[in-house]
Amino acid sequence: MKIILLGAGKLGKQLYAAFVNHPKINLIQWYQRGTLTERSSDGIPITSSLSKIYQADIYLLAISDDSVAEVAQKLPSTALVVHTAGSVQMNVIPQKRKGVFYPLQSFSNNQLVDFSTIPIGIEATEEKDVTLLMELAQTIGSKPKILSSEQREIVHLAAVLVNNFTNHLLTQAAKLCEAHNLPFELLRPLLIETVRKTEQSTPHESQTGPALRNDQKTLSRHLKLIENPELKKIYITLTSAIQNHYENEKL
Amino acid sequence: MKIILLGAGKLGKQLYAAFVNHPKINLIQWYQRGTLTERSSDGIPITSSLSKIYQADIYLLAISDDSVAEVAQKLPSTALVVHTAGSVQMNVIPQKRKGVFYPLQSFSNNQLVDFSTIPIGIEATEEKDVTLLMELAQTIGSKPKILSSEQREIVHLAAVLVNNFTNHLLTQAAKLCEAHNLPFELLRPLLIETVRKTEQSTPHESQTGPALRNDQKTLSRHLKLIENPELKKIYITLTSAIQNHYENEKL
Repeated sequence: MKIILLGAGKLGKQLYAAFVNHPKINLIQWYQRGTLTERSSDGIPITSSLSKIYQADIYLLAISDDSVAEVAQKLPSTALVVHTAGSVQMNVIPQKRKGVFYPLQSFSNNQLVDFSTIPIGIEATEEKDVTLLMELAQTIGSKPKILSSEQREIVHLAAVLVNNFTNHLLTQAAKLCEAHNLPFELLRPLLIETVRKTEQSTPHESQTGPALRNDQKTLSRHLKLIENPELKKIYITLTSAIQNHYENEKL
Repeated sequence: MKIILLGAGKLGKQLYAAFVNHPKINLIQWYQRGTLTERSSDGIPITSSLSKIYQADIYLLAISDDSVAEVAQKLPSTALVVHTAGSVQMNVIPQKRKGVFYPLQSFSNNQLVDFSTIPIGIEATEEKDVTLLMELAQTIGSKPKILSSEQREIVHLAAVLVNNFTNHLLTQAAKLCEAHNLPFELLRPLLIETVRKTEQSTPHESQTGPALRNDQKTLSRHLKLIENPELKKIYITLTSAIQNHYENEKL
């Protein structure tokens, strides 16, 4: 089973590290846009030219969302071509054998991840390719899960809430701390506990705070304290979302 | 050093557990509103009547925000009276010796916490009482930090972002998953990584996603996918907050 990996961004690097010395994975080439390197430090051939791509069984695209269609189109028409994006339709790939291999994680450049903790969403047009991609995910230790395109879109949207939006709340909290000479570290135990609680009860059940209690005194005091108009909007929107969520519940 | 604890809610129970068998803490009574029990299972006298409260050195109020002023007023005028609330002014306590002992954590009823992981914000009118409250926090293993009333208000506001608002984002993500037959568990590794990243870089540096990239295709696709009007508002507000935050940065 010959694999070619395309892309050397955050995810590309993580997949390279998981594949390169794996006894059951035959990584034969690594495509990197604009590189001058011809061989990785592990001896894997590198190319920056799609016209120099070898023949392989699986072409795995860990490239930007917008490049998937364009790059796939230049790959052999009979191969299995697979992208890794949460929000790209599988059918932008023109090959008959197409698939998705979507790791549900946010990757960093400077820290190798342990794929055994990462769910991978799998989709493919042909049944045998679903099996193949499930096996590939299992081979690097991950937990594959078959996701339809629709489910993958929902997971990606939920991931934006859980990762991007949560991270911005932390950014706003850190700004408040900084402006008042308080270490952000003060909030870390609370943050860890917020996440830990989801293991023993649903977030719906874990909700607390002035919005839920409709504690008008604290709510208006907080709005007075907030100087940043963006944070004010966030505060108002999330407070009203919490109240409406539990209000609807009562009906 | 005789202590009386007032309140048997989530925090009251946690403080009781930390105090009751501690060799250096002399818990002499526990006030619980409306209880018929006269003694705790550890033998500590319990009362539901403020007129039967003993004389003590510290009265520690772990009661609802709105009851602090009213209850404090019925306690001995020469004692040190201390509340535990993030958003209640210290000066609602009429006694000359007043203080705040504010644990920065969200407590559950069903799980005892380890105070060694919890910062406690300390404030008091008299210097010797600051020292006393710092010692009390250290005695139960916690890390005390002197916080002015203003700082405590800011910490409480930041805690609302980090705990209450983050938790509601998780509630919305869980609702999306449920509506599409997806286990919320799929998102847990991403959630854990979101928190872990704050240890190696600031949340400001860790931001990723369609809002930051101004990826219009994904943003409008997500808005189409979202049916819940509250979630739509959250999505729009946080997307625009992220974009304005980084836009202001460029100026």
